[in-house]
Amino acid sequence: MTDSTTNMRLKLPITCFILEIILIILFGVLVQYDHETDSREWHKSNHSDYENDFYYRYPSFQDVHVMIFIGFGFLMTFLQRYGFSSVGFNFLIAAFALQWATLMQGFFHGMHGGKIHIGVESMINADFCTGSVLISFGAVLGKTSPVQLLIMAMFEVTLFAVNEFILLSILGTKDAGGSMTIHTFGAYFGLMVTRILYRPNLDKSKHRNSSVYHSDMFAMIGTIYLWMFWPSFNSAITAHGDDQHRTALNTYYSLAACTLSTYAMSSLTAHDGKLDMVHIQNAALAGGVAAGTAGEMMLTPFGSMIVGFLAGIISVLGFKYLSPILEEKLKIQDTCGVHNLHGMPGILGAIVGAVTAAVATTDVYGNGMKDVFPMIADGGKASYQGGIQAISLAVTLGIALLGGLILPIFGQPPDTICFEDSIYWEVGWISFQKRSCAQNLRKFSEERAER
Amino acid sequence: MTDSTTNMRLKLPITCFILEIILIILFGVLVQYDHETDSREWHKSNHSDYENDFYYRYPSFQDVHVMIFIGFGFLMTFLQRYGFSSVGFNFLIAAFALQWATLMQGFFHGMHGGKIHIGVESMINADFCTGSVLISFGAVLGKTSPVQLLIMAMFEVTLFAVNEFILLSILGTKDAGGSMTIHTFGAYFGLMVTRILYRPNLDKSKHRNSSVYHSDMFAMIGTIYLWMFWPSFNSAITAHGDDQHRTALNTYYSLAACTLSTYAMSSLTAHDGKLDMVHIQNAALAGGVAAGTAGEMMLTPFGSMIVGFLAGIISVLGFKYLSPILEEKLKIQDTCGVHNLHGMPGILGAIVGAVTAAVATTDVYGNGMKDVFPMIADGGKASYQGGIQAISLAVTLGIALLGGLILPIFGQPPDTICFEDSIYWEVGWISFQKRSCAQNLRKFSEERAER
Amino acid sequence: MTDSTTNMRLKLPITCFILEIILIILFGVLVQYDHETDSREWHKSNHSDYENDFYYRYPSFQDVHVMIFIGFGFLMTFLQRYGFSSVGFNFLIAAFALQWATLMQGFFHGMHGGKIHIGVESMINADFCTGSVLISFGAVLGKTSPVQLLIMAMFEVTLFAVNEFILLSILGTKDAGGSMTIHTFGAYFGLMVTRILYRPNLDKSKHRNSSVYHSDMFAMIGTIYLWMFWPSFNSAITAHGDDQHRTALNTYYSLAACTLSTYAMSSLTAHDGKLDMVHIQNAALAGGVAAGTAGEMMLTPFGSMIVGFLAGIISVLGFKYLSPILEEKLKIQDTCGVHNLHGMPGILGAIVGAVTAAVATTDVYGNGMKDVFPMIADGGKASYQGGIQAISLAVTLGIALLGGLILPIFGQPPDTICFEDSIYWEVGWISFQKRSCAQNLRKFSEERAER
Repeated sequence: MTDSTTNMRLKLPITCFILEIILIILFGVLVQYDHETDSREWHKSNHSDYENDFYYRYPSFQDVHVMIFIGFGFLMTFLQRYGFSSVGFNFLIAAFALQWATLMQGFFHGMHGGKIHIGVESMINADFCTGSVLISFGAVLGKTSPVQLLIMAMFEVTLFAVNEFILLSILGTKDAGGSMTIHTFGAYFGLMVTRILYRPNLDKSKHRNSSVYHSDMFAMIGTIYLWMFWPSFNSAITAHGDDQHRTALNTYYSLAACTLSTYAMSSLTAHDGKLDMVHIQNAALAGGVAAGTAGEMMLTPFGSMIVGFLAGIISVLGFKYLSPILEEKLKIQDTCGVHNLHGMPGILGAIVGAVTAAVATTDVYGNGMKDVFPMIADGGKASYQGGIQAISLAVTLGIALLGGLILPIFGQPPDTICFEDSIYWEVGWISFQKRSCAQNLRKFSEERAER
Repeated sequence: MTDSTTNMRLKLPITCFILEIILIILFGVLVQYDHETDSREWHKSNHSDYENDFYYRYPSFQDVHVMIFIGFGFLMTFLQRYGFSSVGFNFLIAAFALQWATLMQGFFHGMHGGKIHIGVESMINADFCTGSVLISFGAVLGKTSPVQLLIMAMFEVTLFAVNEFILLSILGTKDAGGSMTIHTFGAYFGLMVTRILYRPNLDKSKHRNSSVYHSDMFAMIGTIYLWMFWPSFNSAITAHGDDQHRTALNTYYSLAACTLSTYAMSSLTAHDGKLDMVHIQNAALAGGVAAGTAGEMMLTPFGSMIVGFLAGIISVLGFKYLSPILEEKLKIQDTCGVHNLHGMPGILGAIVGAVTAAVATTDVYGNGMKDVFPMIADGGKASYQGGIQAISLAVTLGIALLGGLILPIFGQPPDTICFEDSIYWEVGWISFQKRSCAQNLRKFSEERAER
Repeated sequence: MTDSTTNMRLKLPITCFILEIILIILFGVLVQYDHETDSREWHKSNHSDYENDFYYRYPSFQDVHVMIFIGFGFLMTFLQRYGFSSVGFNFLIAAFALQWATLMQGFFHGMHGGKIHIGVESMINADFCTGSVLISFGAVLGKTSPVQLLIMAMFEVTLFAVNEFILLSILGTKDAGGSMTIHTFGAYFGLMVTRILYRPNLDKSKHRNSSVYHSDMFAMIGTIYLWMFWPSFNSAITAHGDDQHRTALNTYYSLAACTLSTYAMSSLTAHDGKLDMVHIQNAALAGGVAAGTAGEMMLTPFGSMIVGFLAGIISVLGFKYLSPILEEKLKIQDTCGVHNLHGMPGILGAIVGAVTAAVATTDVYGNGMKDVFPMIADGGKASYQGGIQAISLAVTLGIALLGGLILPIFGQPPDTICFEDSIYWEVGWISFQKRSCAQNLRKFSEERAER
């Protein structure tokens, strides 16, 4: 089972060690506590302790953290024999990506006097960037080695930071929940990677590319955690006060509406009306993705629910009708269907954000305008902000698709043993049920022999 | 397997779409951001950001949210072949109920100038109301279709809001953690529904109405999350400051004491001293239910522990001796035993609340009296408050039982296929163990043939 | 299966009832709300509500709570037939230990006018002490009855409080995340207990002392929750403001670095490069343990990553090479390998803490020195603080080892049925897979008969 392309005996350890040692050296040279985590700096000024950003953002950070490690990790355990890899590689590449993201994002927009300053906000941003990598991981799930994934993560994080810099710092785009920067970017990057890695003979592993009862139950843990904490995700780095509050509320209602339309469409598109776990596990989350950009705006609960409602419908339709076409015609083998959960809903979110920005008025936002749209508060036109938002979507799509294209990937498992834990993990007994079964068989056989 | 009563091909999609579209329209007409989520309103006044209610309540909200979706959802996965439905229908009806509850609760006590104002507190209240529906779901678990459940949720949420309005707004009852409004109401409503839906031939599905090893493990996820976050549940909407703090602490100790008495009783009532997962999964939570009303009062840790201790004992005794009687004599088939977890402990909590209120003195509460008992702070008698609390329990029981009685329910699965996922869900391989087993059988058979 | 030593019919109920009744009485006599949970006391002073410690610490408390009940509980479910006991006994002894810890810790450092004052900080400390007991539980997992575990918990909590008092109150040691007080203490206490309980014939249960596919998946839930929330664990009781913020950040990077070195070492030390779930589940957490003491100090992200990096390497090496030696030569049967996860990384953390303290300067800490090192802020030498830290490690090791030695333990399961749920729990169907399998066998047999 281990040939030169998959043997990890040295490749994986060397890759991990080299990457981590580089990270440690760069952190030593470049990274410092910011003025809210540094003992001397914080105590220089006359703050009250509760003004420390920790109390505004840390609970949200922990929710995001759960989404990254439990949410994404368990969502991908739906494959019948790829649970260790799903949650285990998710763990590995996320732990790497959040460190690398600290450096890349810090390099582009966290430098102070030649040093990268870090605190809870940079931790959230690092987790966000990691989320984008994990979306791409979903597209190639089961078909790549951990070494490939680490290299993909390194490239993707870097490109993510470039795109984020262009959008947030150069163009002045608003995208607090990352409909564009995280979801659209991660999805189309991953789709391009899986296109490049197209396997004409993936059918050989087809029997493992599906779920079983228990693996679907584990996946639901991931789904529900993503769903519950998405309000924290979208509100984690918005401005303090009403902005965080409003974003959480908008996302909450968007997701609730999305869940109902998902169940409706899942049942409607099945020949016998039965619900499909794939839809429930994924499409019900599209409302969070689609509220990523406009969530912090005065979208209203009404608007949020319409967005979520549409996102659920689009997502189920994507799973049902578009994914097979993508695979057959465009040779895109999208294991988790990230195009349906993150790609299309991300684009929807970007469009909703552009429209909502374009109709922003001081009448509606009052003095809060400076928090949501500083450019408009400074006298810019709302339509200009809307245009910027639209351009940002195009930029994101361009960078993601080009980035996925040029990515070098090497050393992947053969077509016959995709979606299989045992090439990367020590797997002893598959389960004690199996053993019990074997024992029953032996007993049964003995009994027959006696007769 | 799909006859006219269970076929969901059109019924479920149509129900979901109609309900969601009604919700969206009503939200468009009636719902607005409150002054803490609205950009203009919040920035009108000169607040500090940390005074926004978001920072006082959002962490508690997220804990409650986890209890609703993971806690209730996974607690009900104990049935061997009903995991998809337990967690999936829990997800569906909760997503619907929280939207409908926003409207119903807002209609009764959130109207400002003809509009319902929403923010984090209304989100918590919506989740609370949803919790009540999920308790009723526990009583009918495995015997109802998702369409029935959605209709039940619509009725129950409405009635919940009426009862809550009578108690909190008209009578001036205190019930922050909902011993009465949530637990007693949800339990007795559900018990009446399951009585109405009595199935004399449920024995035909008896072999599926029990747990297996892994389903009990999944259920423990639900139990533990409910147990851990119950302090947040009871304290989520109490007054800021010492009230939230004290409620969390009281609940923490009540639950700890309840856990010990649950283990003791589970072992004591078994013929061989072995622990029963049903008790551990459910009765250990009764301490949270029973501290729902008095948790915010000066119950003392000592008092909290006594309450929890008794709740655990009552709950195990209920599972062991009362549930079989309810089923046999009163024809109440209570799948999850909600009478033992939410019914009796809820009543206990109401009584404890009434007594604790009746003995409240300014000496003990000081200036905090106005937060806990505004009526007493305004010169009312403590014994009067105690009486109000007791009357509230009676009102709640009455409304719940009557409500469950008049509820129209239609289109349920036949007796032979209750507690079964596959009538509502696409279920492919039950598990790869089964496949392995089948493969072993084939191999075994081939080997025998060769001999 | 039940002889006099394991029969729980009366032993367990009596133990639980007596312990809980003693707890309730002692709480009644000794325990009071502190000035932040007491209605009158809090309202005496003119606080703003947001100054209540609840808002500083409750979110961290809940994260710690999840680590104790889900983290530890599910981490130990890796054994194939010990899932009920792992999560169930974890639940029982934690619920007991947190109550007993409230009394013991309160007795040593929470007395005010003859009463123990409690609030969110004491709740966190009680959970911390409980964590230590659960570490010891990991060492003896599968080989002890619940009654033994409760008695162990009672002794260990008491001794924990003594050690904590000597370190924090007498010596002035800093150990906010408990590298010494929690991890080193819990590990070596547990190792000594398991040494005393040495079973020469444990091989008889060897076939159950390993994992299966699904049990490893459940265990990963525990691992990931511990990993995610460790920043909250280490920062939960540090000083408000920059201290909590910095501690969370240091732990975050320590864990990330640890994860990469764990994966590298796991693959490197396997003969075929395959990853071992035991390492991933445990060693990846060593970075949190090792940042327990120095996390609140100005360790820098760079320093944190080096610490985590080394902790992962040490821990994997321990699992691979040291554990077998400990078992063979020293007769220490350490079921969960707590020596590798908590023992050695705890000592590493203590050493890192001593060194970091010894090099502390006012130049680096500024006015924050009084929060981190009050003795140095009051004119003490940094090297003296460093010495105190080192001595504290020795004290902790001494008390833990002696304490484990004198502990009386009785009534344990026989060697042949260790690591087995069914002696303590009602276990009906092992799983429906098994039933399906049995059904298949019957069907197969019938078909053969027909031929």
